[in-house]
Amino acid sequence: MTSPQVTVTRRMHFSAAHRVHNPAMSDEENRRTFGKCNNPNWHGHNYILDVSVRGAVDQRTGYVIDLTRVKEIVQQQVIDKVDHRNLNLEVDFLRDVIPTTENVIVEFWRVLEPALRPARLTRLVLWETVNNYAEYDGG
Amino acid sequence: MTSPQVTVTRRMHFSAAHRVHNPAMSDEENRRTFGKCNNPNWHGHNYILDVSVRGAVDQRTGYVIDLTRVKEIVQQQVIDKVDHRNLNLEVDFLRDVIPTTENVIVEFWRVLEPALRPARLTRLVLWETVNNYAEYDGG
Amino acid sequence: MTSPQVTVTRRMHFSAAHRVHNPAMSDEENRRTFGKCNNPNWHGHNYILDVSVRGAVDQRTGYVIDLTRVKEIVQQQVIDKVDHRNLNLEVDFLRDVIPTTENVIVEFWRVLEPALRPARLTRLVLWETVNNYAEYDGG
Amino acid sequence: MTSPQVTVTRRMHFSAAHRVHNPAMSDEENRRTFGKCNNPNWHGHNYILDVSVRGAVDQRTGYVIDLTRVKEIVQQQVIDKVDHRNLNLEVDFLRDVIPTTENVIVEFWRVLEPALRPARLTRLVLWETVNNYAEYDGG
Amino acid sequence: MTSPQVTVTRRMHFSAAHRVHNPAMSDEENRRTFGKCNNPNWHGHNYILDVSVRGAVDQRTGYVIDLTRVKEIVQQQVIDKVDHRNLNLEVDFLRDVIPTTENVIVEFWRVLEPALRPARLTRLVLWETVNNYAEYDGG
Amino acid sequence: MTSPQVTVTRRMHFSAAHRVHNPAMSDEENRRTFGKCNNPNWHGHNYILDVSVRGAVDQRTGYVIDLTRVKEIVQQQVIDKVDHRNLNLEVDFLRDVIPTTENVIVEFWRVLEPALRPARLTRLVLWETVNNYAEYDGG
Repeated sequence: MTSPQVTVTRRMHFSAAHRVHNPAMSDEENRRTFGKCNNPNWHGHNYILDVSVRGAVDQRTGYVIDLTRVKEIVQQQVIDKVDHRNLNLEVDFLRDVIPTTENVIVEFWRVLEPALRPARLTRLVLWETVNNYAEYDGG
Repeated sequence: MTSPQVTVTRRMHFSAAHRVHNPAMSDEENRRTFGKCNNPNWHGHNYILDVSVRGAVDQRTGYVIDLTRVKEIVQQQVIDKVDHRNLNLEVDFLRDVIPTTENVIVEFWRVLEPALRPARLTRLVLWETVNNYAEYDGG
Repeated sequence: MTSPQVTVTRRMHFSAAHRVHNPAMSDEENRRTFGKCNNPNWHGHNYILDVSVRGAVDQRTGYVIDLTRVKEIVQQQVIDKVDHRNLNLEVDFLRDVIPTTENVIVEFWRVLEPALRPARLTRLVLWETVNNYAEYDGG
Repeated sequence: MTSPQVTVTRRMHFSAAHRVHNPAMSDEENRRTFGKCNNPNWHGHNYILDVSVRGAVDQRTGYVIDLTRVKEIVQQQVIDKVDHRNLNLEVDFLRDVIPTTENVIVEFWRVLEPALRPARLTRLVLWETVNNYAEYDGG
Repeated sequence: MTSPQVTVTRRMHFSAAHRVHNPAMSDEENRRTFGKCNNPNWHGHNYILDVSVRGAVDQRTGYVIDLTRVKEIVQQQVIDKVDHRNLNLEVDFLRDVIPTTENVIVEFWRVLEPALRPARLTRLVLWETVNNYAEYDGG
Repeated sequence: MTSPQVTVTRRMHFSAAHRVHNPAMSDEENRRTFGKCNNPNWHGHNYILDVSVRGAVDQRTGYVIDLTRVKEIVQQQVIDKVDHRNLNLEVDFLRDVIPTTENVIVEFWRVLEPALRPARLTRLVLWETVNNYAEYDGG
């Protein structure tokens, strides 16, 4: 019998400032495109990040992966770099993107997918407010 | 490199009355089949609706789609028609269905899928109470 | 030393239809006063009710009161009468009031305060939606 | 036209004690592998279990399946056996596994999948704490 | 019989950037006192604000106050000025305070208490993150 | 003008096993009194603890108290001793009480009230499940 494939998820939290702004557009175009999210004086959010790893259950531990290990990797690779930070100005791996939820989640994937190997990252979910979130599976 | 495909979701809320009732059945059969949900004097819920759109991230905006636009379309096409309404009596697109969570979500899809184009609606989730919900992907 | 006074709370859920309507007003006045909450075809909510009892901790049981007992009393006296019901039409103890959150909570108090004795009911909280609630302490 | 395929979910709750421990390892190895989760005096959680069934919507009832029926089956087959229990010592169908979230969810599947037939169980989600959960689709 | 006194609450949401910083201290002292909350490039939060009004229930409406009215006043007097804003730089009534949750809630009170009259504001609760909040009753 | 008095709260989490059992009663009496909560093989919960401190806002910091300091004290004095522990067997300050939510919260107060001085602890709230909690103000 093949081993069951289970997905396990660790939820993390961080608070950050950002501004949705494309430096290649004029200020007027930025305002028209992004509205209040373009405020030059920044605004911010309490983000929730769900990190999901999928794999066979290890017979010896009963774990797909120890979620404490996932937590440590995500803390070190992502949370320590974005928590209480400005996503436009201070995060090396976000330097060249507009920090929308979509772009942030894709860049988080690029950092976390190799960092979690050999575990297989299969989904990220990023809540920006209580009413909107993005999800990405690497595709 | 192909552009990452991300799913973005907007959560909406509405409160409505309904009654789970099949006019083709006798009253006795309705009661036996639907129990307290068949109450002729109605009952109601605070519904939560999650609307998910999937697509490539636009390089210029960093958005799959502006969720404010999703919000406006869903508000106009669905929420304004069902909020503080009776799902059995007052909603044109629900006229011929028993308003179970399953049927309501499928009819929401039929309204929202064309209204959101060219964006691609890929999932709806509809919570009826804190303990039950339905999801539909158009299949 | 006097015995510590602790407050214990049991959370309950129910779903009901209602309409905010004063029969002593004209239809036009009702509409103007209550807006969409006056819809003649009803609407409804998932209500959350928190029932709090305060007292000394019984040395023998470690309980102020067995919350299972509170649950049974509230279930029988209130929830069974309002769940999947119409608050305007079907609830004996709400017969003569406009079923706003305020009036409903006061009538719940009138039912529950004697039913819970000798335990001392000290607070009710009633959530109507995720964004509004009423609380009452009998005063 | 083919009938829409909808997924409906019922959420259930239980509270249990457990200990992450592999009897085939030494005590020292257990401690090193599982840390505080290996505490010999047990610890416990409020678990949340989401049970999802997928299928065509029955034209006569508007249901994929009556979720009250799902609730009864899950209550009888799973919740009554694990709620206020010790997952290592008292649950027949967990006898030979380390009660990690992963193993527990797979065993729940083995119990629930046949019990829910002819309905088709398609997903289980099991939250162990507010920050971690597992999901399983039978694969 | 005197009229029952009920408290009704309206929950509001906003997202803002801020920095906990006292201009009268040196940079070094600010860092030591406020840690990561002092980040010069800002950070931000999704704030939740609960606004509570207490009073007698109006016999004619069943309301202490129409919460739609509360919502409009709070939206206009507070939310429109702080949502997607920088609390240190852009909010007139926060100009001279360090924007901690404590100071922000007191200033909100000073704005809302007169704006809500003759209704009687009795409590504000302000959540800054999922794990901390402040409350103020005007005392 | 006197300084405003604000209450600030820090939320903490822990998971523990316990059994509601009075050693002075017979087994039969324990079973009859406490039902499934008396299970000799233990059960457990994810507890949520809200710790509230009230005081004047410090003009220099804008804080009633630095909640990071509250978090450290509560972590060290309470959470480290109860998280992933057995409340009946392993917690020194719970040795002589039946670990009901009521008794646990009073003992937490006895530990935290002096540890937080000169700050003034004014309320503890302890959630045992999503549907019940206790609160204590030292009275």
